[in-house]
Amino acid sequence: MIYLDANATTPLLPEVLDAMLPWLRDGFSNPSGAYAGAKAARKAIDHARGQVAALIGAEPGEIIFTGGGTESVNTALHSLDRLTGQGKAVVSSIEHSAVLRYVEGLERSAAKVAVTLEGRLEIDNFVSSLDGAAFVSVMAANNETGVIQPLSEIVALAHERGLPVHTDAIQAAGKIPLDVRALGVDMLSMSAHKFHGPKGVGALFVRDGLRFKPLLEGGGQEAGRRSGTENTAGIVGMGAAAEWMMKHSSESTGAIRDAFEAKALEEISGIRVNGDTLHRLPNTSHLSFDRCDAAGLLILLDEAGVACSAGSACMTGKQKPSHVQLAMGIPEEIAKSSLRISFSRLNTMEEALAAATALKKAVEKLRRVQGSGVGPVVVYSP
Amino acid sequence: MIYLDANATTPLLPEVLDAMLPWLRDGFSNPSGAYAGAKAARKAIDHARGQVAALIGAEPGEIIFTGGGTESVNTALHSLDRLTGQGKAVVSSIEHSAVLRYVEGLERSAAKVAVTLEGRLEIDNFVSSLDGAAFVSVMAANNETGVIQPLSEIVALAHERGLPVHTDAIQAAGKIPLDVRALGVDMLSMSAHKFHGPKGVGALFVRDGLRFKPLLEGGGQEAGRRSGTENTAGIVGMGAAAEWMMKHSSESTGAIRDAFEAKALEEISGIRVNGDTLHRLPNTSHLSFDRCDAAGLLILLDEAGVACSAGSACMTGKQKPSHVQLAMGIPEEIAKSSLRISFSRLNTMEEALAAATALKKAVEKLRRVQGSGVGPVVVYSP
Repeated sequence: MIYLDANATTPLLPEVLDAMLPWLRDGFSNPSGAYAGAKAARKAIDHARGQVAALIGAEPGEIIFTGGGTESVNTALHSLDRLTGQGKAVVSSIEHSAVLRYVEGLERSAAKVAVTLEGRLEIDNFVSSLDGAAFVSVMAANNETGVIQPLSEIVALAHERGLPVHTDAIQAAGKIPLDVRALGVDMLSMSAHKFHGPKGVGALFVRDGLRFKPLLEGGGQEAGRRSGTENTAGIVGMGAAAEWMMKHSSESTGAIRDAFEAKALEEISGIRVNGDTLHRLPNTSHLSFDRCDAAGLLILLDEAGVACSAGSACMTGKQKPSHVQLAMGIPEEIAKSSLRISFSRLNTMEEALAAATALKKAVEKLRRVQGSGVGPVVVYSP
Repeated sequence: MIYLDANATTPLLPEVLDAMLPWLRDGFSNPSGAYAGAKAARKAIDHARGQVAALIGAEPGEIIFTGGGTESVNTALHSLDRLTGQGKAVVSSIEHSAVLRYVEGLERSAAKVAVTLEGRLEIDNFVSSLDGAAFVSVMAANNETGVIQPLSEIVALAHERGLPVHTDAIQAAGKIPLDVRALGVDMLSMSAHKFHGPKGVGALFVRDGLRFKPLLEGGGQEAGRRSGTENTAGIVGMGAAAEWMMKHSSESTGAIRDAFEAKALEEISGIRVNGDTLHRLPNTSHLSFDRCDAAGLLILLDEAGVACSAGSACMTGKQKPSHVQLAMGIPEEIAKSSLRISFSRLNTMEEALAAATALKKAVEKLRRVQGSGVGPVVVYSP
C-alpha cells in the first residue's frame, strides 16, 4: 500500500513504539503511586512533557496531556466558554468539526468567519466579527486543504480587544515550526497520531497565567487540569514523536508532495489544486477533477493500492460535500470530485510518483466508465 | 517487586499486548478511511465492542469506547445532567472523585448518601434522598475497600421513581460477574487498565433506548456518541482483556487474598480489616494498623519490594485521610493508618504470603521507630 492519508493519521514510528514498549510491559505502574515503579512512570511523563513543550516553544508546565485532539479542542473551548463573559465565540468557517460542533452546542452564539477562495481567513470579516466577541478559535492549518492561516495577525487583532485565542494546531504541529510565543496564542491543541505518535493521546497548551477550567474532573491528575489515570505509554510515545519531528526536517516531504503534484498537473487533464499554495502545509495536496466523483476515485485508488481521502477522514462515507470546500466557494459538484493526498516523512519519492501514475489511470478510467451525462460532469474555473 | 496495587492499575497481559501490536504497526489506518487498511481497523474495533459487551451482558451497540474511566464517568453524568429535569443528583458518599468532583461542579445540587460502618450504602438514607432527585449514580464496588454495593436494590428503588441510574463499575468490571440486565442499570462505566488492559481506554454502556448526550463533540465517531479518532490498538486491547477476564476465574485471586489476610491477621497485632467482608471484591484487602502511619508503612514496604497504596492511587501524596473511610465513620487517625492491598489474577500465593511477612516487619519496625508519643497512637474499636 502507498499510504497518502497522513492528515487522517500517520504510522507509528518504530522508534516511537520502542520508546513506548517498556511502559506497556514492566513500567505499568500508576504514576500516582508511592513506590519506585510509580515514580519511574511519573518521571517518564515529565520527560515527555518537556519534549512536547519543546515542539511548540512552550514551558513543560503549560502542557496538559489529554486523550486525543478532540478532547484537547473540546477542553480548550469548554474552558473559554466557562471563564469568559457574554459574547460570541468567533471561529473560522473551515474549522474541524471538533470546533464547529462544540461551539454549536454552546448556549452562546458563534460567528463563523468567511474564508477566501484560497481558503484563508478573510481578515476584514474576522475584524468585524470581533465586535461583541468573547473568545476566538482559529485553526493553524486546515486539515483538508493544508492551508495555513494568518495566526499571528489573528492573535494580534483578538488581543487588541482583550480576547483570548485558541488554535487547533492538530494538523500543523510537527509539520511546520510552531512557536506559541511568536504566535501569541493562549491555547493550542495537538494530537500525537498526526505526527507519528500513538492514537488516543493529545496535548493542550495552556499559557502560563491563563485561567483554566478542566473538562474532565476526578482524581486531579495533570495538576488538576485533566483527571484520569495517565496513559504513560501513550504520553511517552507522544513525547518521542515530538522529538523525532523536531530532528527531522519536513523539507523532503515538501519536495515529494511538489513532485507528485507537478506530475499530476502535467499528466492529468481537468485537474486543479485547491487552496493557497503559498501558505500551505508541505505535505498536503488537495485536488479536484473535472467529471469525476471522489467516491469512485477512492475505490479505484484503493484497488491500485493507494490510500487517500475525500475531504477529511471523519467525513468519509457521509456523502456530504466538505464544509471546507463549500466555505471556499467551490461548487458542490466540484467539491464532490476532490481528493486530499497527504504525505508524511515516511513516504518516498518513488511512492509519490507511482501514486501520480495510479491517480492518472483512475481518473481516466472513471471518466471512460462514466462517459458523458453519467455522474457529475461539471467544469469549474475558480 | 511484589505488585499488590491492582485497584490502582494492573499489568498489561502479554497476550493483550500481542493483540494490540498489529494495530500499533501496520494496522495504523484511521478506521474512518475508505481503503482496505481502514476497514480492517473498523472490523477490529467492532470485534472488541462485542468482547467488552459480553463482559457485562450488553449488546455491542450499547458500548461506547472512551479515553478512560474518568471520561466514561464524566460522560455519563454529563448526559444525565443535560437530559434530566430539575432535581438533585443522588450519589453515594464513597464514590470515586470522578463522580464526586463532577457532580459538585454541576449547577444542580447533589445528595451524598451515607454508608454503614461496613461501607455499604444506607438504604433508608438512599430512599429518603430520592425525593426531588433527577438521577442516581452509585458505584458497583468501592475502589478503596472493595465493598460491593447493593446495586440491584438501588436500581429497583430508583426505577420505581422513574430515575435513571449510572454505576461506576470501574473496580468491579472483570473482578466479579456483572450483568447489566440483571442489575437493571441504565449506564455503566469501565476502564481497561483495571483489568489487565491498556491505559487510556475505557467504555461506557448506554442502555439501548436511553436518551444520550455526548461529552466530546466533533467528527462523530462511535455513532456520534464519542468523537475523536478511535484508538484502535487500545480498543483491541480492552476487548482482548475483557475476553481474558471472562475465561479466567477470579476464585484463585480470592484464595490468595484470603490467605494473605489470614496470615496478616494472625501475625500482626493491632490490625483490622475495614469494610463488609461478605460483600467484597475477591481481590481487595483494606487494613488499618494501630500506632502506624500509612505513609511510613508505604516507604518501608517499597524498600521491601512490595507495592500497595494508602487509599486510592489518586489520593496518594495528598496527606488527606480518605473520604471513603471518613464516610464509614473511621476516625481520621485510623484512616491515616490504612493500607489498600489489591491483588490481580497474576499474583501468586507465594507473593501473598511473602507480602504478609513484609507487612508484619514493616508494622513492627514503624512501631519501634515511632515509639510511644511519636506519630499517631490511636486504638480504634469499630
